[in-house]
Amino acid sequence: MISVGIAGYGYWGPNLARAVAESGLAKVEMIADMAPAALERAARRHPAARMTADIGEMIRDPKVDAIMIATPVHTHFPLAREALFAGKHVLVEKPMTDDVGQARFLVEEAARRGRVLMVDHTFVYTPAVRAISSMIAAGELGEVFYYDSTRVNLGLFQRDVNVIWDLAVHDFAIVDHLLDQRPVAISASAARFVPGSPENMAQLTVHYDGGAMAHLNVNWLAPVKIRQTLIGGSQKMVVWDDMQTSEKVKVYDRGASLSEAGPYEHMVSYRLGDMHAPALSTKEALLTEVEEFVRCVETGAAPLTDGHGGLRVVEMLAAASRSCALRGHPVDLTTLKVAS
Amino acid sequence: MISVGIAGYGYWGPNLARAVAESGLAKVEMIADMAPAALERAARRHPAARMTADIGEMIRDPKVDAIMIATPVHTHFPLAREALFAGKHVLVEKPMTDDVGQARFLVEEAARRGRVLMVDHTFVYTPAVRAISSMIAAGELGEVFYYDSTRVNLGLFQRDVNVIWDLAVHDFAIVDHLLDQRPVAISASAARFVPGSPENMAQLTVHYDGGAMAHLNVNWLAPVKIRQTLIGGSQKMVVWDDMQTSEKVKVYDRGASLSEAGPYEHMVSYRLGDMHAPALSTKEALLTEVEEFVRCVETGAAPLTDGHGGLRVVEMLAAASRSCALRGHPVDLTTLKVAS
Amino acid sequence: MISVGIAGYGYWGPNLARAVAESGLAKVEMIADMAPAALERAARRHPAARMTADIGEMIRDPKVDAIMIATPVHTHFPLAREALFAGKHVLVEKPMTDDVGQARFLVEEAARRGRVLMVDHTFVYTPAVRAISSMIAAGELGEVFYYDSTRVNLGLFQRDVNVIWDLAVHDFAIVDHLLDQRPVAISASAARFVPGSPENMAQLTVHYDGGAMAHLNVNWLAPVKIRQTLIGGSQKMVVWDDMQTSEKVKVYDRGASLSEAGPYEHMVSYRLGDMHAPALSTKEALLTEVEEFVRCVETGAAPLTDGHGGLRVVEMLAAASRSCALRGHPVDLTTLKVAS
Amino acid sequence: MISVGIAGYGYWGPNLARAVAESGLAKVEMIADMAPAALERAARRHPAARMTADIGEMIRDPKVDAIMIATPVHTHFPLAREALFAGKHVLVEKPMTDDVGQARFLVEEAARRGRVLMVDHTFVYTPAVRAISSMIAAGELGEVFYYDSTRVNLGLFQRDVNVIWDLAVHDFAIVDHLLDQRPVAISASAARFVPGSPENMAQLTVHYDGGAMAHLNVNWLAPVKIRQTLIGGSQKMVVWDDMQTSEKVKVYDRGASLSEAGPYEHMVSYRLGDMHAPALSTKEALLTEVEEFVRCVETGAAPLTDGHGGLRVVEMLAAASRSCALRGHPVDLTTLKVAS
Repeated sequence: MISVGIAGYGYWGPNLARAVAESGLAKVEMIADMAPAALERAARRHPAARMTADIGEMIRDPKVDAIMIATPVHTHFPLAREALFAGKHVLVEKPMTDDVGQARFLVEEAARRGRVLMVDHTFVYTPAVRAISSMIAAGELGEVFYYDSTRVNLGLFQRDVNVIWDLAVHDFAIVDHLLDQRPVAISASAARFVPGSPENMAQLTVHYDGGAMAHLNVNWLAPVKIRQTLIGGSQKMVVWDDMQTSEKVKVYDRGASLSEAGPYEHMVSYRLGDMHAPALSTKEALLTEVEEFVRCVETGAAPLTDGHGGLRVVEMLAAASRSCALRGHPVDLTTLKVAS
Repeated sequence: MISVGIAGYGYWGPNLARAVAESGLAKVEMIADMAPAALERAARRHPAARMTADIGEMIRDPKVDAIMIATPVHTHFPLAREALFAGKHVLVEKPMTDDVGQARFLVEEAARRGRVLMVDHTFVYTPAVRAISSMIAAGELGEVFYYDSTRVNLGLFQRDVNVIWDLAVHDFAIVDHLLDQRPVAISASAARFVPGSPENMAQLTVHYDGGAMAHLNVNWLAPVKIRQTLIGGSQKMVVWDDMQTSEKVKVYDRGASLSEAGPYEHMVSYRLGDMHAPALSTKEALLTEVEEFVRCVETGAAPLTDGHGGLRVVEMLAAASRSCALRGHPVDLTTLKVAS
Repeated sequence: MISVGIAGYGYWGPNLARAVAESGLAKVEMIADMAPAALERAARRHPAARMTADIGEMIRDPKVDAIMIATPVHTHFPLAREALFAGKHVLVEKPMTDDVGQARFLVEEAARRGRVLMVDHTFVYTPAVRAISSMIAAGELGEVFYYDSTRVNLGLFQRDVNVIWDLAVHDFAIVDHLLDQRPVAISASAARFVPGSPENMAQLTVHYDGGAMAHLNVNWLAPVKIRQTLIGGSQKMVVWDDMQTSEKVKVYDRGASLSEAGPYEHMVSYRLGDMHAPALSTKEALLTEVEEFVRCVETGAAPLTDGHGGLRVVEMLAAASRSCALRGHPVDLTTLKVAS
Repeated sequence: MISVGIAGYGYWGPNLARAVAESGLAKVEMIADMAPAALERAARRHPAARMTADIGEMIRDPKVDAIMIATPVHTHFPLAREALFAGKHVLVEKPMTDDVGQARFLVEEAARRGRVLMVDHTFVYTPAVRAISSMIAAGELGEVFYYDSTRVNLGLFQRDVNVIWDLAVHDFAIVDHLLDQRPVAISASAARFVPGSPENMAQLTVHYDGGAMAHLNVNWLAPVKIRQTLIGGSQKMVVWDDMQTSEKVKVYDRGASLSEAGPYEHMVSYRLGDMHAPALSTKEALLTEVEEFVRCVETGAAPLTDGHGGLRVVEMLAAASRSCALRGHPVDLTTLKVAS
């Protein structure tokens, strides 16, 4: 059973620690946080774990096999680097880093040292995304044309990152996982309506090399919470509404195609078939994720959401930020990759 | 009572003719369509009206005071011009023309001849938009930050226009009516997933001179029909869901503002108040629109959706098309206007 | 092509006349209504039909093969009887009569004269009920346990009938069609909240000889319109939400069964499978109904909703009324039938 | 700060214990459960509390001021009686007892000894019911005509009680709290579709002395979870949908009234005004309930859901059971009360 050290016990760290404990596959060996109140809470929940205010001490502890990082984004890089240097496996919260070069460094360092580097793109492990991923892999949707996501709500303005790095990161990770195509260009626009706080509303369009298009609409200043994604394929189309308590994923046997009606005429004909909502697993995403992490640590396999995926997501976030600064001017992701 | 000639009795013409007849304020004097079957249908519904296959004849008829044009988009300009030349008032289906220069010509010609030029932006006359417009005018929403519309469905692929000219045109007209700000730049991306047919999916972002942002998501290849618009203001926010059979417009007393928490700290605080859904009129939009047209013909007043608005909408459509061709590169609408 | 006479051109008559005309299988030969304004409207829509203020004249007209009765409920019996006496086929609006004895008379008279007697239980011909009926007939739901319908809205208080005769009649007809079981007892309660008007709210429970239970909740004084029916079977369960614009019928692979856990213990185990929403036909129910009527007139077949079904529905309505008067005291439907 | 003993740490006991601890107004002094595993879980969560397998020992413990009973229904009476005999205040889970005489005994015993007897009708303390209760008390709805609740789902078949004692109990407690009228008769029907398990579906209609009607539809074998209540008043009407994550309570300014149209005519006229959804508190119901209990223990005040209310609910449950056995035959609640 591997021993885990939790770095950061603020908002997300407690969830990671709980999932590790519940998994039965790993144990929470240490928890580190600079805030005494956080450590107190941690100690009450995890009486068998050691507490420390010194993250470095935990990273260097020989009894710790892996570090899970749930600290502010700008600290992800130094902590993950230190952990890899110390020979630990690493699971880092999303986004992996706030800088492309740093993300690339971590990927290369993990490869060099043969350590697992996994990014906590939790949504990839949800039953909904697992089901959609299976359908796409099985060819059920046909060619995937687009991924169109609306992810808006009121609240949770972040202080250090804007709405793109906070919300669009989820969709970038999901699309990276679902699509077998690479992004070539991104066009993004953002606005800030609460002066002094980061951008709170953004639209992003990504063009893929296979012809697919992704569209993301993210907003922290919406009157209602919407988590709705449409996925259009040549054979079937999906509506994933994450706010539903049941039937989150609906698959429609619908589509359109061109039918030649004569030498000068053509008509689009429609297919309006049944809808199907598969029963989804009720397993918590975080538990599936911890299992994946443990499996990879034990076998050396690459996780579903490994450092390469984390790097691609950071590249897209960085490109989106650049496009925003240019009011939507498209940023070429191919060049960016060639340059790497 | 003014006498109206209906040009085109295909999909929309019958609705215009029926609304004129039901209004009791105008009479359907003539109906023109080149298809004999269409004229037969027209004659059965409007036995007192004269039928003709020659639109020009109808336009020149001295008994006809006004022409309502419901023909394919590329014919809007020649027919409207001819009607104005003949001294008739004109109501033309949306979009007014498919070319900015032609739209400008019509506006100037109507002014020169003192004739009403009105564009059939029907949505502006719906009870929902009337109610939202009143709230914004009364300052109830505070400063309007954004207009975010999702207008997707399966079907009705057009042959001669793409999804922007077919669906986004509605939102451009609505925003033009609601916002007291002028667009300065537009960034748009589109894709075509049914080869041989026009673009069927597009995202558009418009930046306004007062800081507002409009975002439109239009799609002919979506599995479900969505007509949902979020409008964010500094005081209140609106969700307009046109697919609901009741409570189409919901007003939320919600928002966020910055509260200073200390010299180095700030926090966003939220307001989570009541929701209110005003009872909406059940009057048909088209009837309200015909009344507006008649009122303007009789009094010389400028209609809510006059040629100037129609021109601005065509300018935005043209700019959006250009941005699409550039994969989202923003197109400056100020220059465009200065140039005019 | 059979010739039809329409008796009553108020609320429902125009729909029947239009459906006959659109069917292409029958012609509207005559229309009768005592109100001159109604006849004028009728003449405009059906210029080829003869108009009369004398229903008797129409019933006796030798050119008329069948009479469709859309007059107030208390006139159904005398008109239908007169039409059968005159040798006409009859389609009568729901409820067939307001009296069991009269309904029985009509059934017997139609049988004696070899004429079609059909009741306009329109819901039975909707694509939703057609689909549910097919599923039940194919055994897809397994044994049908219950039919639970909520049919409430604001408005349309009737003057001459209460909410049971106006709304519950629909569900009685649907259940009569769907279930292969006979009702044995009915318990009903009603209340009147607008003094001077008929009862506007009622709950009805029907026990069937096969063990099934039907539950109806009808109300004219509800704040919102609900048309929701749950149908529980041993294999699958259905939610039919008629207010949805799409996916009106959803089939859930869900259920519960008893699993023996030991000599003194038992546990209920659940099945939580997929949901499936079949694509429904878009054909108008009334058109399907007219086709059924014409088919039966031409072939002598018994319609889906024949007089026997109409009689059973009237028996249930009468029994429900009696139970209401007794504040829910169950009324035995077997006795009632034996007595007949 | 009062000291609480928790009797039963199975499904509901942990929630009570947690709420007591979180309230800061009382402390969990002891926890009693016969199952060692339950006590272990309890000890981990409440390390400062004493654990015992002997409930009697806890009840007699002089340091314990109040007992909260969360054991199977048939044990409520003996445990509550013993606790009252020992001079403790008592909070007992719903239903208070499974027998009217026993409920009455507890009420009288609590009064005789001056101890608080409160029933855990949790729904009464939800923000939704608090808001509705305030509106009714303020006369906002006018005269309350009806309470119509649909409370169905799949699962959680109970072993010792049927669906009425498990689900309808909630609505009986809510109506008892909301309405200023007394029930006079109840008609109920139930069915069992899983052989060997208790009745899983029931409909109940209650007539009140002020003319109001309550209707409850409860079902453990429904394909979907519905928690929807309509409340009709002479001035306004409420839709309470507890499955919504926001806007659970909607108030409609809608209604109908009779307007005299002439000597022989009358017409119902409708009011179709705005809808309003008040912002609800986000406070957990159980916390509010614990506060109420502590307040009453400290001041001697009668709780919102005291033993009298608990007794009335048990009377209704017993009457409903009797009516079910009679297939809906109405049971007179007045007599029942007079008899007591």
